[in-house]
Amino acid sequence: MTLKDLHDPTLAARLRHLLDHKTKPLGSLGRIEDLALHIGLILGTESPRLEQPQLVVFAGDHGLAARGVSAYPSDVTWQMVENFLAGGAAVSVLARQHHLALTVVDCGVRHEFTPRPGLLVRKVAPGTADALEGPAMSAAQCHQALEAGRDVVRSLPGNALLLGEMGIGNTSAASLLLARLADADLNECVGAGTGLDAAGVVRKREVLRRVLESHADARDPLDALAAFGGFEVAALVGAVQQAAQERRVIVVDGFITSSAVLVASRIEPLVLQRCVFAHRSDESGHALMLRELGARPLLDLGLRLGEGSGAATAWPLLVSACNLLREMASFDSAGVSRSG
Amino acid sequence: MTLKDLHDPTLAARLRHLLDHKTKPLGSLGRIEDLALHIGLILGTESPRLEQPQLVVFAGDHGLAARGVSAYPSDVTWQMVENFLAGGAAVSVLARQHHLALTVVDCGVRHEFTPRPGLLVRKVAPGTADALEGPAMSAAQCHQALEAGRDVVRSLPGNALLLGEMGIGNTSAASLLLARLADADLNECVGAGTGLDAAGVVRKREVLRRVLESHADARDPLDALAAFGGFEVAALVGAVQQAAQERRVIVVDGFITSSAVLVASRIEPLVLQRCVFAHRSDESGHALMLRELGARPLLDLGLRLGEGSGAATAWPLLVSACNLLREMASFDSAGVSRSG
Repeated sequence: MTLKDLHDPTLAARLRHLLDHKTKPLGSLGRIEDLALHIGLILGTESPRLEQPQLVVFAGDHGLAARGVSAYPSDVTWQMVENFLAGGAAVSVLARQHHLALTVVDCGVRHEFTPRPGLLVRKVAPGTADALEGPAMSAAQCHQALEAGRDVVRSLPGNALLLGEMGIGNTSAASLLLARLADADLNECVGAGTGLDAAGVVRKREVLRRVLESHADARDPLDALAAFGGFEVAALVGAVQQAAQERRVIVVDGFITSSAVLVASRIEPLVLQRCVFAHRSDESGHALMLRELGARPLLDLGLRLGEGSGAATAWPLLVSACNLLREMASFDSAGVSRSG
Repeated sequence: MTLKDLHDPTLAARLRHLLDHKTKPLGSLGRIEDLALHIGLILGTESPRLEQPQLVVFAGDHGLAARGVSAYPSDVTWQMVENFLAGGAAVSVLARQHHLALTVVDCGVRHEFTPRPGLLVRKVAPGTADALEGPAMSAAQCHQALEAGRDVVRSLPGNALLLGEMGIGNTSAASLLLARLADADLNECVGAGTGLDAAGVVRKREVLRRVLESHADARDPLDALAAFGGFEVAALVGAVQQAAQERRVIVVDGFITSSAVLVASRIEPLVLQRCVFAHRSDESGHALMLRELGARPLLDLGLRLGEGSGAATAWPLLVSACNLLREMASFDSAGVSRSG
């Protein structure tokens, strides 16, 4: 994958000029102005408009979950997929509020779903293998999951993609990817996930330490991805790649989606130009991950739910940024005096 | 004014129970859960629904502006009121996005407006007096402005009030109120406002120091309000009092609206139970003001525009909090397994 460098000094200067002539003190809309500039550069226009935003939740199960790395049983993955589709999950409620089309992708859930609108079945296998006994995915499975993510994005309309995920055990995969790709201390990368107690976190760290050591040679981004999983993380990587190629605005949710962006950015750093980081998750490790990505998220509300809930929560800020750029009057057009 | 104490342990426990049984890890919606609990307590219900939200921008001119305390001329106050009504200001754009009814109140702008929908004329006088030569408002004018604020809120429907303001020179009034009522170092209370340069801030501080000294005896909240102004700040105080009395959810914008809440809370501390603080403004002094109010704002986006723009920007978070509380499934209703 090769991406166009979106750094366009002429367009950036035009956008900055527009923002600076709006009826407000210079820079007084703070980070919303930066966001407007950013989205303008992604979409390549002075009057950006976000169209048909797609919130896609990639779901998959993890062999490692059997090792007790999560506070919840694996069955919660499929049960929550049912909940997304029935409209009762947090992300369902937020998607309705913000008029986001919600699609759930079964990338490898250990369950057979009844077909229905809003569900895409791109199952690689019913859950990854136990990463303590070998790679979570074979190279072929990893490739298949990446392709699934790309395909899904290709099939959806619009110019903005909000990323979400569901998979009991997937903070483990994200922690392992962070530790390996950022060469960071594993302890700093591992947190309570869905809500382990202190003893549970100690156990999780011990399991993940053994997994990390057992795949000492998986240093390449895709090798690490295959080693640690999961199918939904790999599909997210593919989705990021495809959306970046199409110059969609990519809204990154929390710890797990950020780990997919980390993988994608180690393959092609320019994907980061297309990413808006929604929030700083309360999951320990996300702050480090964001630093590693050079990302400054919009919100800091102590969320740690995943599903794309943080991306959906930040969404109206992106709409505001575009609306302000397109709709605010200039000093001249409104007949407002400038500063002296 | 006496207010009911909204601390209701029974309702709080019921709300907490509802939140804790939603299909998500315990506490994983972070501050949005706190916000849902808070709004539930304000509205006195387990299923809060925000109805007909009103964004009210109180506008007034300041005699002190002639002393060069602002980067902009006083004419910008009425020009921006025209801009609000024409739909070209930041707050106009944000109100449209979030379906907030926008009302502008002329509390004392130095201009005669043509009557039109969305504009309420409650003019006390064409601008306050120069606070360096005497009180900005007489006690009678202050009372009139407070009553205007109360009247406006009484006349508007809905159960949520978003506060905004416009008035060249009004960061000076807010800084003086903070310095006096919090007994804080004036230098810490004074910032660049709409965009003074460093020399301008030094001049502003010097002017405000003389104003503060010349009203050394104005220590009571209402005396300080009359001494430092302005009409729009006094109207905001009245609006906060009325909305608090009616148990509306009060969404506080930035530095100036917070100063009105500071005044109101020194008269009746229980108004703070009804307030949601939208954001931490980039205006120097707001962080101190928020500490003084014991307030933890939702957003920190470097905004420093006023108008109610921060309140409008935070609004969807309040809607999310209510929707999540009302619409999310519980573990039982969705058939999702709990943590082990």
